Amino acid sequence: MESAIDRHLQCPRTLSRRAPDDYRPPFPIVVARASEDVTQVVMAYVGVQYRDGEHRWEALEALRRIVDDFALDDGPGHHDTTEHRDAAGYDNLVAVGYWRDPAAYRRWRDHPQVAGRWESDERIDGLGFFREVVAPRVDRFETLYPFADDLPGVGAVMDGVSGEVSEHAYWGSMRDRVPRSQTDRMAPDGTLTALPDPARPDRVVVRGHDNVALIRSGQDWSRTEPGERELYLHDVEPELREAMDFLRDRGERVGCYSNRYVRNIDLDGHPLDQTYAISHWRSLDRLERWAESHPTHLSLFVAYVRRARRLPLLRLYHEVSVVEAADQSYEYVGCHPATGMLRDAESII
Amino acid sequence: MESAIDRHLQCPRTLSRRAPDDYRPPFPIVVARASEDVTQVVMAYVGVQYRDGEHRWEALEALRRIVDDFALDDGPGHHDTTEHRDAAGYDNLVAVGYWRDPAAYRRWRDHPQVAGRWESDERIDGLGFFREVVAPRVDRFETLYPFADDLPGVGAVMDGVSGEVSEHAYWGSMRDRVPRSQTDRMAPDGTLTALPDPARPDRVVVRGHDNVALIRSGQDWSRTEPGERELYLHDVEPELREAMDFLRDRGERVGCYSNRYVRNIDLDGHPLDQTYAISHWRSLDRLERWAESHPTHLSLFVAYVRRARRLPLLRLYHEVSVVEAADQSYEYVGCHPATGMLRDAESII
Repeated sequence: MESAIDRHLQCPRTLSRRAPDDYRPPFPIVVARASEDVTQVVMAYVGVQYRDGEHRWEALEALRRIVDDFALDDGPGHHDTTEHRDAAGYDNLVAVGYWRDPAAYRRWRDHPQVAGRWESDERIDGLGFFREVVAPRVDRFETLYPFADDLPGVGAVMDGVSGEVSEHAYWGSMRDRVPRSQTDRMAPDGTLTALPDPARPDRVVVRGHDNVALIRSGQDWSRTEPGERELYLHDVEPELREAMDFLRDRGERVGCYSNRYVRNIDLDGHPLDQTYAISHWRSLDRLERWAESHPTHLSLFVAYVRRARRLPLLRLYHEVSVVEAADQSYEYVGCHPATGMLRDAESII
Repeated sequence: MESAIDRHLQCPRTLSRRAPDDYRPPFPIVVARASEDVTQVVMAYVGVQYRDGEHRWEALEALRRIVDDFALDDGPGHHDTTEHRDAAGYDNLVAVGYWRDPAAYRRWRDHPQVAGRWESDERIDGLGFFREVVAPRVDRFETLYPFADDLPGVGAVMDGVSGEVSEHAYWGSMRDRVPRSQTDRMAPDGTLTALPDPARPDRVVVRGHDNVALIRSGQDWSRTEPGERELYLHDVEPELREAMDFLRDRGERVGCYSNRYVRNIDLDGHPLDQTYAISHWRSLDRLERWAESHPTHLSLFVAYVRRARRLPLLRLYHEVSVVEAADQSYEYVGCHPATGMLRDAESII
């Protein structure tokens, strides 16, 4: 049993861990580990938005171009591709790339092909584009996996996994796994600010505030047997969908700026047996309160726990980041005004 | 908004409160307050046990004698009477008395009439008796009420109520309301020990260990209108019963030494529209883990939260104590071997 906080990130606490020292969790969980040279990672969600089915082909073409760009020098060490419909009824295709080095990300972003495409004023009729990038330092994110191979998300660009960790299976363990929680409550500060570009009216940048929290919470039923698959899709997934619909449609009242329940797809747009929720929150506190107390999420939790032993091959995992304002960047081109972080941002104009 | 920890019990923290300083709960809750001269309270559960319905009359007679004794000098400032069937199929009538002064309790206990009855070797055929007494110091218990009048339980022997308190509506708030949590994890130490009396084989004393936790969690639907009453009894109470049955029958595996889901009765044995759960736990940690994660309790929580606005006159409340070994006393005379704290106690003979 070891701490989820890697040895080189441990420091004298000024804030208590919630679990007592002798706490022993009821089942095993591991976290991703990176060597000490990793000091900050980058998670870049690059999206294509369209409304009518007739634009799906152009949107998929645009998604493939993003993934082609990922293959350039300094591209991400790992990526995946998804689709989802948002609250405004638009469809969105998103490629997320993970980098273990922010300098490499910046070089990639500034590559003439990538920058040229992003900065171009040429528009493809019917498509919007966005880039939502967070770059948490290593003391500002945590992961959680009940499996140790083929890690999805940020785990795929790290170097391995821990042994069994102590900090899980209790409310508050998410915070206890974030190294910075040893000394910092990570309280939010300020608001989201929308900065339209007067010269280019279809572009908006949203400036984040300190300690925005981002959770990616994933479900992978691709390895399940038919009975387990049916159990998940029939008895658990509908509860997940209800919780996700709540956050998508009414998240503002609980501090959720944006929630996307996305389906993994291949580059032809065919669905894979994997989904995840990607959601941005005003603070880790607000995420904790919702997860621990909202009836939709607790119903989901109960639905899963009651069936967990019959879902041995279902893979659930998550990654949570709490990010400084300067390490967030949200950019929208030709997107509808409730896209992502735009919805809750205050315009300063 | 004030702290649930009364001003004279606040001290410099060595352990953090779980909620951030700017946390604001979503609905109002008050706690009981006592003047500073109250340093320790006493909660004495005095029970009568019988198996066959034919002994009910004698058992009710015995209960009435206990309540008569409560009226002696130095008797409790408040009491109530209940019945429940236990996991072994025995019925139990319990009178609980509350004192705001342990010296008064000791004088009452040592009153010739009370002590004489308890120490007598005369038995009433078919009846067992028990006395389970905990005497938490004021830094070792907390209360929670969404109403401010007619406080049940320990609140009835205190002096009033607080204003709205901050520490509630999040997991961990129970601990945060216990003053001692400011500096002490209240970890359990040792085991329950059964000490049979060789000279009087029908008597057993159980010695507690440090930081046994006792929760009384109450439900009062006596003030509800018919529709609300039906909603509670039909949609919520069955979930409560399932959670209580789990703790009664399988509590040992989660650290629950004893759970009684009791119905208030009058002295003729007629049921009142009030119930409560009274349960003893190895530690506050174990109680927290169960309440926060067990599907039966979370299902109950969800069932209630989804209907809370339609249950305005239902009164739910609780009191929780975390008690030093020396301030616990559990005595059994002629009771079956799984009664109360007997079940999980190790015999030293």
